[in-house]
Amino acid sequence: MEKMRENDGKDTAVQVRDYQTELEQIMRSNVSPRVLKDRISDYHENDIASSFEVLTRDERERLYRILDAEQLSDIFEYLDNAEIYFEELNARKKVEVLSCMEVDQAAALLKRLDKPERNMLIDLIDNESKRDIAMLESFDEDEIGSRMSMNFIEIKAGISIREAMRELIDQAAENDNISTLYVTDDNHTFCGAIDLKDLIIAREGSKLDDIIMESYPYVYAREMIEDCIERMKDYSEDSIPVLDENNKIIGVITSQDIIQVVDDEMGDDYAKLAGLASEEELNEPIRQSVHKRLPWLIILLGLGLVVSSVVGLFEGVVAQLTIVICFQSLILDMAGNVGTQSLAVTIRVLMDENLDGKQKLGLVFKEARVGMCNGMILGILSFICIGAYVVFAKGMTPFFGFSVSACIGVALLLAMIISSISGTVIPILFKKFGVDPAVASGPLITTVNDLVAVVSYYGLTWIFLIEMLHLAD
Amino acid sequence: MEKMRENDGKDTAVQVRDYQTELEQIMRSNVSPRVLKDRISDYHENDIASSFEVLTRDERERLYRILDAEQLSDIFEYLDNAEIYFEELNARKKVEVLSCMEVDQAAALLKRLDKPERNMLIDLIDNESKRDIAMLESFDEDEIGSRMSMNFIEIKAGISIREAMRELIDQAAENDNISTLYVTDDNHTFCGAIDLKDLIIAREGSKLDDIIMESYPYVYAREMIEDCIERMKDYSEDSIPVLDENNKIIGVITSQDIIQVVDDEMGDDYAKLAGLASEEELNEPIRQSVHKRLPWLIILLGLGLVVSSVVGLFEGVVAQLTIVICFQSLILDMAGNVGTQSLAVTIRVLMDENLDGKQKLGLVFKEARVGMCNGMILGILSFICIGAYVVFAKGMTPFFGFSVSACIGVALLLAMIISSISGTVIPILFKKFGVDPAVASGPLITTVNDLVAVVSYYGLTWIFLIEMLHLAD
Repeated sequence: MEKMRENDGKDTAVQVRDYQTELEQIMRSNVSPRVLKDRISDYHENDIASSFEVLTRDERERLYRILDAEQLSDIFEYLDNAEIYFEELNARKKVEVLSCMEVDQAAALLKRLDKPERNMLIDLIDNESKRDIAMLESFDEDEIGSRMSMNFIEIKAGISIREAMRELIDQAAENDNISTLYVTDDNHTFCGAIDLKDLIIAREGSKLDDIIMESYPYVYAREMIEDCIERMKDYSEDSIPVLDENNKIIGVITSQDIIQVVDDEMGDDYAKLAGLASEEELNEPIRQSVHKRLPWLIILLGLGLVVSSVVGLFEGVVAQLTIVICFQSLILDMAGNVGTQSLAVTIRVLMDENLDGKQKLGLVFKEARVGMCNGMILGILSFICIGAYVVFAKGMTPFFGFSVSACIGVALLLAMIISSISGTVIPILFKKFGVDPAVASGPLITTVNDLVAVVSYYGLTWIFLIEMLHLAD
Repeated sequence: MEKMRENDGKDTAVQVRDYQTELEQIMRSNVSPRVLKDRISDYHENDIASSFEVLTRDERERLYRILDAEQLSDIFEYLDNAEIYFEELNARKKVEVLSCMEVDQAAALLKRLDKPERNMLIDLIDNESKRDIAMLESFDEDEIGSRMSMNFIEIKAGISIREAMRELIDQAAENDNISTLYVTDDNHTFCGAIDLKDLIIAREGSKLDDIIMESYPYVYAREMIEDCIERMKDYSEDSIPVLDENNKIIGVITSQDIIQVVDDEMGDDYAKLAGLASEEELNEPIRQSVHKRLPWLIILLGLGLVVSSVVGLFEGVVAQLTIVICFQSLILDMAGNVGTQSLAVTIRVLMDENLDGKQKLGLVFKEARVGMCNGMILGILSFICIGAYVVFAKGMTPFFGFSVSACIGVALLLAMIISSISGTVIPILFKKFGVDPAVASGPLITTVNDLVAVVSYYGLTWIFLIEMLHLAD
């Protein structure tokens, strides 16, 4: 199986490359435009798009002349950095391509052009696209409305199956998302949806009302993406209508949009957990990467100084019993690790479900208990290991060694319990006060945990080892 | 706008709750089964599913009797913990529901039943479902074949538009995923796909070949999910055919499946970055959570001991100049933070694209440069801040203060450069040797960075402050 998988892997890898080179060869062959167009049209837009990078500018411009605006717009929707190639089009083509593109894609592309050109193009494109783009841009990027597509089939309530089928065929030429038809009343208020499948297998005689799903899910354009994304995933429909405040349908979120949103949201969470301002691309200029990471690092440095000054308070303890500094990093790291685990769990939970106060409290207790279980196991482990280490590696008396390691074990237990609690409580509080927990929690938790760890560790050392057992060097 | 968003949020929140209570009331009203069935059928399966938790067992059983297997199977596909409610069905219903369910869903459900019952049910279900489930289970869960749905429309090449339409209508009754039709030759080899939209708007006369997309993307069942997920996302098609080794089509990956896969993959990466064995659910038993987290923590403890023993080597340095311990945590934390940033960036990049050696080297250099830029800025910052801190807070001479802080600044720079490099190189190497970089990198990098930081910090202190400047207390 391993072997076969290898092959499959290669096969497809080869194919993907092939497309590029095949297209390269086709473009370099000098056949008539007509033939060229036919040959090119045999390829998937995504493959044509990915062949752009290997083609020369002349070859691309030949392509632009040969393909019509409809085909080009499909290709441009697949390009990662469309704006670069878009510049190569002449003004007329630019306008045509923009008008043919999905509105959300067109809007995104326009954003990445420089202002004068953008305004020029917006003037030139047809009024419908203009209106759609304006509507799309009226939403903040964290509102679901900013992700919707205006490309859907709308039919009036109360028509017959045959009329609905006719409507579908008329509108299908214009709109791609035909798997669900949306039923509205005379003032476009959303009444329900029809699964295309049901329409196709419906008998001539039967009434349209019988196949309308009144309970079809929907979202409001002004809802925050993070608030409705889970709901949209749960219903697992191919497309979900987006309504304005008057329950008029103004667009749809297709499953492709949902894939995009899920990908973005989780990618951002991931980046934030790692202390990055946002997800980074491979070919990003250094300046930008520095800019994305520096703010966190500076905050962390400041917080680090706070920890340092607290450690400073225990300088006396260390001076009397230098061996304890060996294990400071251990306690701090472990506290940090446990805190991060709780943080990650809490953030995913906060993201996925709406918890009431009781559940939140339950979560905190659960994390505390988990921290305690792990803390006990690790505390005992380190009591034994570190004790042995001090005795054999450092050549101290067993009494000394195991008093030190006992002290470390207890400090570890304390630090881990408190870290798990702070790792849960802090993000919950941030969420409550409307701060994105994924961003703000990380650094604060590291600091809190470091402080807790330092105080409990050196505090215990001082009381237990120095004051009680008089183990000072 | 803020206000309105609030409202929308509430509206939908209320609606979601309403469904549950409405259904509750309907189930508690004692109307005739016929009426009850009609009323229930007005609701979305997802809402009926989510109402299960508020219904009593008797009410649910009444529901099972009223709804037919087709409806129940749809509802069970939406249930999070279907196995619990599945137990409440009688044997005959169980078999019927299983046979109606999507194969992947049925297989997943069967997995969660206890062995004797599973075998009993597999014996009873019809041969087709049996064959499909067996096929699905022949793939490991990290192969894309394990995620496919067998529910798609297959038409023979060379038939007319009219025949294709007829085929569609016949098969649509059985299969939901009709937005794309798959064209195969006589021995089921995949030839291409037809967009239902093109079929619907095609004119009677025109030939089927004209609307077949020969360049439609596909995956092999044995491909690893992580290898093909990006490709499937890129093509952004509603469904992608899954082929066996002989290029026969055996299933499709719908965009719903892709959403699921993306969600799972990213959720796992996220969990791994936080040192969790895998993503955790809200209502997971403590034992399980402990079990998921403990392994990492034990490894981290072991690695922490290594760091501690290295710190131990510098006990002498600290004994002579105790102030330096104040800033150990600072240097270690910063090194850790920078390393995590590089790690996160590298892992996402490795996940998203296939890099050749040159690009990988480029990535390492880029990260190193970013680390250096940040390191310099933070180094200078801490030179100034810490110097001032030591002078004013600790009442040391400016010369002493700024020698110490200079030493810290340089150590910070060194640590940050090396951390960014290790944060990039280690995951790349793991990936090369076939170890999941997301899992293995974290702890190793923390340790490497801690070691680097400790050595460079105390090393510099020793050489620069004690040997050269004789600043020992």
